[in-house]
Amino acid sequence: MEVRRRVERLRQYMEEQGIQLSIIWDPDNQFYVTDFRAISYSRPILTFIDVHDVQLIIPKLEESHASERAQVDKTHIYYEQYAHRNLTLSYLEFVCRILKKIPRHSTIGIEMASMPASVYQFLQKSGYQLTDIGDKLIEMRSIKEEKEIECLRIAGRLSDLAIAESLSNVRVGISELEFDSYGDRVLLETASQQYPNELIGYADWTCSGTERSEMPHLNSSTRKFADGDVVVHSRQVWYNNYRAENERTFLIGNVTEKQKDLLKLAIEAQQVGMNMIRPGIVAKEVDIATFNVFKKAGYADFVQHRVGHGLGLSEHEEPYLRFDNELILKEGMVYTIEPGVYVPGVGGFRHSDTVIVTNDGSFSITEYPREFEKMHFALS
Amino acid sequence: MEVRRRVERLRQYMEEQGIQLSIIWDPDNQFYVTDFRAISYSRPILTFIDVHDVQLIIPKLEESHASERAQVDKTHIYYEQYAHRNLTLSYLEFVCRILKKIPRHSTIGIEMASMPASVYQFLQKSGYQLTDIGDKLIEMRSIKEEKEIECLRIAGRLSDLAIAESLSNVRVGISELEFDSYGDRVLLETASQQYPNELIGYADWTCSGTERSEMPHLNSSTRKFADGDVVVHSRQVWYNNYRAENERTFLIGNVTEKQKDLLKLAIEAQQVGMNMIRPGIVAKEVDIATFNVFKKAGYADFVQHRVGHGLGLSEHEEPYLRFDNELILKEGMVYTIEPGVYVPGVGGFRHSDTVIVTNDGSFSITEYPREFEKMHFALS
Repeated sequence: MEVRRRVERLRQYMEEQGIQLSIIWDPDNQFYVTDFRAISYSRPILTFIDVHDVQLIIPKLEESHASERAQVDKTHIYYEQYAHRNLTLSYLEFVCRILKKIPRHSTIGIEMASMPASVYQFLQKSGYQLTDIGDKLIEMRSIKEEKEIECLRIAGRLSDLAIAESLSNVRVGISELEFDSYGDRVLLETASQQYPNELIGYADWTCSGTERSEMPHLNSSTRKFADGDVVVHSRQVWYNNYRAENERTFLIGNVTEKQKDLLKLAIEAQQVGMNMIRPGIVAKEVDIATFNVFKKAGYADFVQHRVGHGLGLSEHEEPYLRFDNELILKEGMVYTIEPGVYVPGVGGFRHSDTVIVTNDGSFSITEYPREFEKMHFALS
Repeated sequence: MEVRRRVERLRQYMEEQGIQLSIIWDPDNQFYVTDFRAISYSRPILTFIDVHDVQLIIPKLEESHASERAQVDKTHIYYEQYAHRNLTLSYLEFVCRILKKIPRHSTIGIEMASMPASVYQFLQKSGYQLTDIGDKLIEMRSIKEEKEIECLRIAGRLSDLAIAESLSNVRVGISELEFDSYGDRVLLETASQQYPNELIGYADWTCSGTERSEMPHLNSSTRKFADGDVVVHSRQVWYNNYRAENERTFLIGNVTEKQKDLLKLAIEAQQVGMNMIRPGIVAKEVDIATFNVFKKAGYADFVQHRVGHGLGLSEHEEPYLRFDNELILKEGMVYTIEPGVYVPGVGGFRHSDTVIVTNDGSFSITEYPREFEKMHFALS
């Protein structure tokens, strides 16, 4: 990835803003500027950027991993073992050492939304001026480079395979978790054959039945599929940390006419949204246009969430496709398009696809069929 | 769960400390006092506790879920849809409304380690005194109640089944991710049969080969198992959010004598640690005793991390079994015991089990065999 170029862009911004040093806390932002991602951050990991160096503070157990992956100039290691009791035991000691090299009252760039209060308080008490660089990092990350798009494309293709496998196993009596696991297995087998020595990950959740599908965000449970179920199946797959989102709503057996109509409506709204995505369109227009599909059909009160979110390294990335966002879409942005409608006693209905803005339009990296006819499963 | 009793204990502490209001940000802490857990916190969710009420601020799309699960007195909903544009659009408006009811300069309890700088700054500028309640919540959560232990036992049992299934599929040529997926599948099938309508989750990661096993924390990749591999397989399984950790190191085919000896040494160190766990022992003693097993064999420099961490709702919970922790272990505490040794060019070696402190000793909720003989797989 173009890590060094990203660091240069951030340095340029720092210079414009009079920022001497940036401290990056958020794991996804750190990956964006170092190419290094740990499995756990319960032992703090921090990245420091100034005009000279990119520095990383890590616990001892990340030493080999960081030396293999991290594109940084200096690495500082803190310890937690008895044998190392005379070495540096806290990440804060390194923070102090790095801070000593810049004048008191210097301006430090931090992410206000993710730096913990304890670290913020420490910097504040030490006399530094603190300013937010979170929005700048969001802006940088929102436009994807060619290599990032290549990862996203692979993630999208793998998510399609997984969805296809899960959907080919729909039947009464299997649990949400078992349903998910069919797709997981094929995803991991295929990825292992096609992409040796790469990192693949996934998250999936399935909400089945009238009551559960009406809640947009639930972890999969051991509830078993039944005749008459509305099911919302959600999946994210990531390839080298870049995520595609792929969601399908389907019906099992004897559902009501109203349930069928609502699924058709959600599919129509999604198509309206996907057709709109191109450079120059304003974020809010997409949200309002898809909302109007539901409104015209009399379901204005049953829309609970915005039409989509940015996607890349994080589960949800800003900026959002929301009715109050004046952002103009640009080439390289990535969005989910997922208008949903949730009616108590009837169920929830939402497809989601991941769309990339091109120089004159857009394309979807998730291509599993969306049409109603493929989303209604007869009882076997 | 005993949510109400926990809230009362926190209120008692708040009274002692002169805290008028607590704001809880960390998702696991919020679950601990409300029984409610969302799938995503990119839309902020907050819990407020004062002497009268437990209040929850949630986005609209969590309304049904929260009304089913959350044990709170009041729920405040913020919106993000065009139809609701005249309603409350930001969680901060509710924060302000709740704060208005307490006198300026009141003391507010917050978690310094997890509240973001932006919210901390907002409270600070509003003139409140802020004090940390994070340690109190850690202390409360560290002693598990009977019902929590029951969930942990089930999680442990399920993790054993998953490990057994993955290990029965060890062979040259399957990838780390495929190896994981055997266990995942059986876990989800068994859980679906035995525990209807419950939440089950898992995380697993496998580091295979000399180079990768030497790094304690890596996500599984598509690397394929090969003759002569040292493999560290890690798994956490959670049942209704309570986690058991279960890790096994194994050898494939023609490994060296040194690799065999190091695995035996790690198993010995783990046994030393597990035998020590009982009420009254000091945390540091366990860490130092297991360290000494490696030291005696000449590997003092190759120990990278503490011997264990607390476990329950989070991946890693404080307090830790670390050489500088004077904490005295008590009945109801839960620890992983996972001494590890990592030698460049040779590999990493670590079993992990999850142990619960009883009134006169301890027992392990993970019971998959640990002995060397079961951890060496011949080539088929």
